[in-house]
Formats: sequence, structure tokens, C-alpha cells
Amino acid sequence: MNNRNDYISDAVIRRLPRYYRYLEELIDNGITRISSGELSERMGLTASQVRQDFNHFGGFGQQGYGYNVESLHEEIAKILGIDKLHNVIVIGAGHLGQALVNYPNFIKRGFHIIALFDKDPALIGTVVNGLTVMADSEIEDFVKNNNVDIGVLTIPKSEAVPMAKLLDKCGIKGIWNFASMDLELPGSNVVIESAHLSDSIMRLSYRLHNQTDHS
Amino acid sequence: MNNRNDYISDAVIRRLPRYYRYLEELIDNGITRISSGELSERMGLTASQVRQDFNHFGGFGQQGYGYNVESLHEEIAKILGIDKLHNVIVIGAGHLGQALVNYPNFIKRGFHIIALFDKDPALIGTVVNGLTVMADSEIEDFVKNNNVDIGVLTIPKSEAVPMAKLLDKCGIKGIWNFASMDLELPGSNVVIESAHLSDSIMRLSYRLHNQTDHS
Repeated sequence: MNNRNDYISDAVIRRLPRYYRYLEELIDNGITRISSGELSERMGLTASQVRQDFNHFGGFGQQGYGYNVESLHEEIAKILGIDKLHNVIVIGAGHLGQALVNYPNFIKRGFHIIALFDKDPALIGTVVNGLTVMADSEIEDFVKNNNVDIGVLTIPKSEAVPMAKLLDKCGIKGIWNFASMDLELPGSNVVIESAHLSDSIMRLSYRLHNQTDHS
Repeated sequence: MNNRNDYISDAVIRRLPRYYRYLEELIDNGITRISSGELSERMGLTASQVRQDFNHFGGFGQQGYGYNVESLHEEIAKILGIDKLHNVIVIGAGHLGQALVNYPNFIKRGFHIIALFDKDPALIGTVVNGLTVMADSEIEDFVKNNNVDIGVLTIPKSEAVPMAKLLDKCGIKGIWNFASMDLELPGSNVVIESAHLSDSIMRLSYRLHNQTDHS
């Protein structure tokens, strides 16, 4: 962990959740030890890339003899910050918001959805996976009083910027954005991560039309 | 389009949907022309990166004078293959499957969801956004008879591999995978793109705990 202040490239950061998921699978299958060779092969990387990735975070040791799966999994969880519990609110109780509230993997990884908001009177007061949908007008007080870490935006593009500004004003730390736009808050310290579903299916389309000949 | 057989890096492919979305926004705002300088600034790239990206696809011309927004948008749609209509089926009619069936951006980009399947008798026969949920046992015949391009998997990890193999056998071309695993079909030509929602929120967590000091 001694090298935590290195510059870590996006590509490395993108791989961390994949390492985490793969190690989770190994644990589920009762595997306790893995060589860097096996790990890299499974990840589609070279063994030296895996070692380089891990060196950013202090190594994790035991090359040759291999890694202890459980402790590597724990170390990566710590690096990702998912060893801590995060309080999450979801803004937008439509189909996608409801799907996220019902997604078992979030709670498993420490993302605890504690409130769900919408502006639609028809949705306010309905119950989704045990949470009563609250009105958008209650967001400000709720965030100020409940130590909310992350706000998830499952609202239309046109509403995303004003809502992000409100969350920033209330002192939220991170925004997970599902609106189909590159959300930006110039001058703010809020960390914004976007999950662009359309981008993902467009990449699939690209590969369908451009890569099938080469595979 | 004369350079289409170049090797195109993943990074370039990742940027194509972003260009597409940004140009769409410009069109919505009535903007007809943009310089490569403005476009690159908005994308967080250098002007020379934008030119290099576009050179992979034959350029799109008019440097200095700028790009015609509408025709650039059309060209990128063609490169992405989203100028064509794709027939899509969704397997898994749970919350996420239902959210996708109700997502307006897919039909806007030519992804036409024509059927929704589930194995749960409680869901089979229910109607989601005009589609009657069909039984998993009907998938094989449906795919063979309906020119299906893409199968979307919103099913648990444990069911993803056998379902992907079935779709491959039926001649589907692409799989959009939401199961929390790196789905692979060795020896198959099916194009698989995964949308790992958990990876995205784990990256947000990483940045919350590691990058806030530097911003």
C-alpha cells in the first residue's frame, strides 16, 4: 500500500473491479491460491501487466508461489473502498431506479440504498423493495441529515444538471449518473461516474459490424 | 471510410459513442457546425487526438472551417452500425429486463426489442411495454424464425453461460451481457459486450477514496 500516491491510469482503475469479481468467483469455487500466470491468463493480460498493476498498490507479494485468493480479494476491496459501507440515495423511481434498488450486488458490495426519490406524485408513497418513495422536495433535508455518500441519478438528461448541483450544494460526495450525457460540475469536488448504457450497446453494434470478420 | 480496415484501438471505439452523443446534443441545440478545437475541448481531448480518431475512418474533412454537425453525426452512426435496425430480445424479465424494455434511447438508436423471455411462470404472460413475456423454452424457435441480431442477458450469473451457448447455437450475432461475470464463448463468433453496473459503481467508490484529494 506504500505506493498509493502514484499516478494510477484509468486502464488500471478499470481492471480493479474485474480482478475483484474474478477473485470472488475463485472464492465461491473454493480456490484459495492462484499464480500470477493463471490470474493474468484469465484476465486476458500478461503476467507482467498483472504484476505492474499490483505494484501500484504495494505488490501483494508471494510471486512464484502465487497469491492467497482471499487476502488479495480483501486488499482489492480496500483499494476500491468497498470494505466501507456507503449510504446511497436513488433519484428517479422509474424502471431503472427500481431495478437498482432491487439489485442484490450493491448491498453485497457495501452500497446501502437508504432512500428513493421521485417528482411524480403517482410514484411518491409507493414502496420499492421496502423503501417508500419520497418527494424530490425532501432531498435537501434528507442528504443534510443522513450522511449520504452517493446520489444515483436515474432521471432524464434535462433534469440531471440542476439535480447534480443541488446534491453538490447539500454536500454529497459522489454521483453515479445514468442520464445519457457527460455530466460535469465545473469547480465542484463531487466525483461523478457515468454508467452509459447506450454507449455499451453502441459498442456492441460497432463490433457486430466491424469485427466479426476478424474473429 | 477508406481506412476502415485499420486496427482501431479500444480507446477509440470507446470514444465513438461519446462523439455520437455530443453531436446529438449539438443538433438538439440547433448548432450546425463545430470546429475540431471546440469538439475536442468538450470531449476532454486534444484537437490532434480528435483528428487522429477521425482519420481512422477517412477523416470527415473540412479542418479549419470545422465539421458539419449533422453529417458528422450521420457518419459516426454509420461507423457504429446504428444507422441499421437491430432486432433485440431480452432474456430475464426481472426489474432490469423491464427497465431496458422501457428505455426510450434504445429504439431511438435502432435497437428494436421484439421479445422478452423469462423462466418464471409468474412472469410469463404478463405484459411489459406492450410485449407479452414468453417462456425460455420458446427462445430457440423464436430466434431461428425472427432474424434476431442481439440477445440481452439480464439473468443471474449461474444461468448466463448455458443461455449464451443456446443463443450461439440458434445463430444469434451478439450478446449484451448484464450478468456480473466476464462471459466467454471460446470458439464462437458471437460478439459479447458486457455492461458491468457493479464495476461502474466500484470505480466511483475508488475515485471517492483515492482521487478527491487531487481534484
